Amino acid sequence: MSTRTGALSLDRWILQKLHEATGRPPIRLRAASGAEVSPADAPPLGEIRIADRTTLARLILDPEIAFGDAYTAGRIEVQGDLVSMLEALSMVMPPIERQNGWAQFVSRWMGWAQADTITGARRNIHRHYDLGNDFYRLWLDPQMSYSCAYFRSPDATLDEAQEAKMEHICRKLRLRPGERVADIGSGWGTLALYMASRYGVHVRGFNISRQQIAAARQRAGEMGLSGRVEFIESDYRDISGPFDAFVSVGMLEHVGRRYLADMGRVIRRIVDKSGRGLLHFIGRNHRQPMSPWIRKRIFPGTYLPTVREVLASLEPGDFSILDVENLRPHYARTLEHWLDRFERSAGLVAREFGEEFVRTWRLYLASAIAGFRTGNLQLFQVLFASAGWRDHPWTRAHLYEPELHAELPARESQLH
Amino acid sequence: MSTRTGALSLDRWILQKLHEATGRPPIRLRAASGAEVSPADAPPLGEIRIADRTTLARLILDPEIAFGDAYTAGRIEVQGDLVSMLEALSMVMPPIERQNGWAQFVSRWMGWAQADTITGARRNIHRHYDLGNDFYRLWLDPQMSYSCAYFRSPDATLDEAQEAKMEHICRKLRLRPGERVADIGSGWGTLALYMASRYGVHVRGFNISRQQIAAARQRAGEMGLSGRVEFIESDYRDISGPFDAFVSVGMLEHVGRRYLADMGRVIRRIVDKSGRGLLHFIGRNHRQPMSPWIRKRIFPGTYLPTVREVLASLEPGDFSILDVENLRPHYARTLEHWLDRFERSAGLVAREFGEEFVRTWRLYLASAIAGFRTGNLQLFQVLFASAGWRDHPWTRAHLYEPELHAELPARESQLH
Repeated sequence: MSTRTGALSLDRWILQKLHEATGRPPIRLRAASGAEVSPADAPPLGEIRIADRTTLARLILDPEIAFGDAYTAGRIEVQGDLVSMLEALSMVMPPIERQNGWAQFVSRWMGWAQADTITGARRNIHRHYDLGNDFYRLWLDPQMSYSCAYFRSPDATLDEAQEAKMEHICRKLRLRPGERVADIGSGWGTLALYMASRYGVHVRGFNISRQQIAAARQRAGEMGLSGRVEFIESDYRDISGPFDAFVSVGMLEHVGRRYLADMGRVIRRIVDKSGRGLLHFIGRNHRQPMSPWIRKRIFPGTYLPTVREVLASLEPGDFSILDVENLRPHYARTLEHWLDRFERSAGLVAREFGEEFVRTWRLYLASAIAGFRTGNLQLFQVLFASAGWRDHPWTRAHLYEPELHAELPARESQLH
Repeated sequence: MSTRTGALSLDRWILQKLHEATGRPPIRLRAASGAEVSPADAPPLGEIRIADRTTLARLILDPEIAFGDAYTAGRIEVQGDLVSMLEALSMVMPPIERQNGWAQFVSRWMGWAQADTITGARRNIHRHYDLGNDFYRLWLDPQMSYSCAYFRSPDATLDEAQEAKMEHICRKLRLRPGERVADIGSGWGTLALYMASRYGVHVRGFNISRQQIAAARQRAGEMGLSGRVEFIESDYRDISGPFDAFVSVGMLEHVGRRYLADMGRVIRRIVDKSGRGLLHFIGRNHRQPMSPWIRKRIFPGTYLPTVREVLASLEPGDFSILDVENLRPHYARTLEHWLDRFERSAGLVAREFGEEFVRTWRLYLASAIAGFRTGNLQLFQVLFASAGWRDHPWTRAHLYEPELHAELPARESQLH
């Protein structure tokens, strides 16, 4: 047997192991030696080319992290539609609890190293949200909402859908002029400014991303809303109330499993006896850790809770659950828009951050689309109320009435 | 001190203890001796007159059961609006876990004696639902729905609201002609017949109340639906599938806390990989036992779960939670209609079942109104889907569109 034939056989054996360990996806795997493994029963959706044997070995050891890192480094090339292939993978790939011991160890170690303590959370949030407002402006909607939009119809634009999301939340909360609202994880201030300008409420936005807070304050000033909207650099654990309404959009994911009960304690401390609140978050059907590669490279310290875990954190407050809505298809669509816009700015991003950064973010956005399409990821809005809340409407029809706001506010500000 | 003065003082002392033990409700308590205790800070909502010292002593020992039984026996008379007074009581009354040891023991003992095993459940259901279809016809709507109605507007009639409830459930489930539906706890068959006649689905209704099943089968025959609707006398634990849709209205309350996981196992056994289901049930904001008097006299073996407990039972099936709706105000309104109709037939009921029965049922209906008004009771609809379900609509607007059914079926049958 020649060296080349031996290399081919070894690579083929490793590819075979890898194909089995990843649940036999309908994808052809191909090594640099030319060795390949094809799915047995159906034509492959596409091909994954692995550049060298070190990468092959790493893929066996810790498939998720190795795949992401090798894709980033260009040691893995994907032929075919990336999203469809990730979708197929996510449907067959065993969860981390059924992967090998090393992968499980790394996942657990990261959970510890990235714990969302007060300092840990600040570091974790800084790593993602302080990449520069300019970067996010390239591919988010002009108003800068970095969370699941709400498509009243599937062909709505991203801008329309992001505004519809804010309106949907405000209607669910039944905001009244003059009320006090806490917005925890207020991003670039988009929702806080919407609530204040359209619903006449007083909002305090809390955030630990410095860049976001600076931008949000500037926008409030430009819109003449500084008197009604305040952006405060503060960890959620330090907030004091009371507030008539609580809202948190895309922030619960960063709280961490160990701290969900703390979040529940904060909510019941700051929500008035006749108040209510809404949590909007990426969640799961059952308890499982977040993808280790996403935690390593994109969202350190992230944990996606189940609705049940969230209800457990609310239960000691004797809140009534009023409405839980699953918006899973909306996040797939939102991410499709983002990925599309991201690709159109990929050249600019590469010049600023490098090619590897572009590939990392492409994989993140594509795998999130795949997750929402397959149901590996879910998007929940949970509306709850204190015992004394008296504004429970007879039906939810008011959420589906035509737009109520005849006049728009005189000045709106885009982030710049 | 004369004997009469002594009796007065002792009664007053007991009344004082009772007032404290029940959380100092804004109600005047009065003993036959003339002793009375009034709320300190506000004019009383009404007066509770207790006929003898034995009743007084029992009230101290086990306030909930003694109150109910003495009210039934006419040893307690209520002056004032019964519902308002129960509402006030339910807001201040300590939960069973904070009542005295005897009351707690009785509550726990009942939980054991009335356990919802296969034979226990049959006995428990028989006691309530086999009181005679004639009795229920006196005060339910003509179509016979014995569960929370859905008032599209608060002034809808009970008949309209019961039909709207069935329509709301069918829309949430997105039933398609020809699909197979399991209706667990199918009552007098009203929902099953509605689904079959309006949505063209095949329904198997499961029930362990013989009287209900006999009536439901007769109606199916009269409506010419026997080919599409089948009523089966079977415990939920014995059902086999597969079904495209699962529905259970007002039955989960009878499953019992210990058996919620069994119910979850049944659901994942019988719901197809691309199916979905809806649970409609009276629930709680946090875990607590059902009122012991209600369990003793009205609904043996009942436990009202939290949404969290229900999600826990569904979680091993990897179902996605799609929609949770809280219809609490609707059950208060439904019960107001029922109590009103019940009172108008009270003479007839008394002739058939006796005056004590009338008082028992009056107290049950009135205390349920109070429970839903105060939030001690909640009404949840939980919609969930298997991983393979592909009909998740973009929005819930379709639930709020005008009635789609232009023609009604040729023949409808009332229960008779």
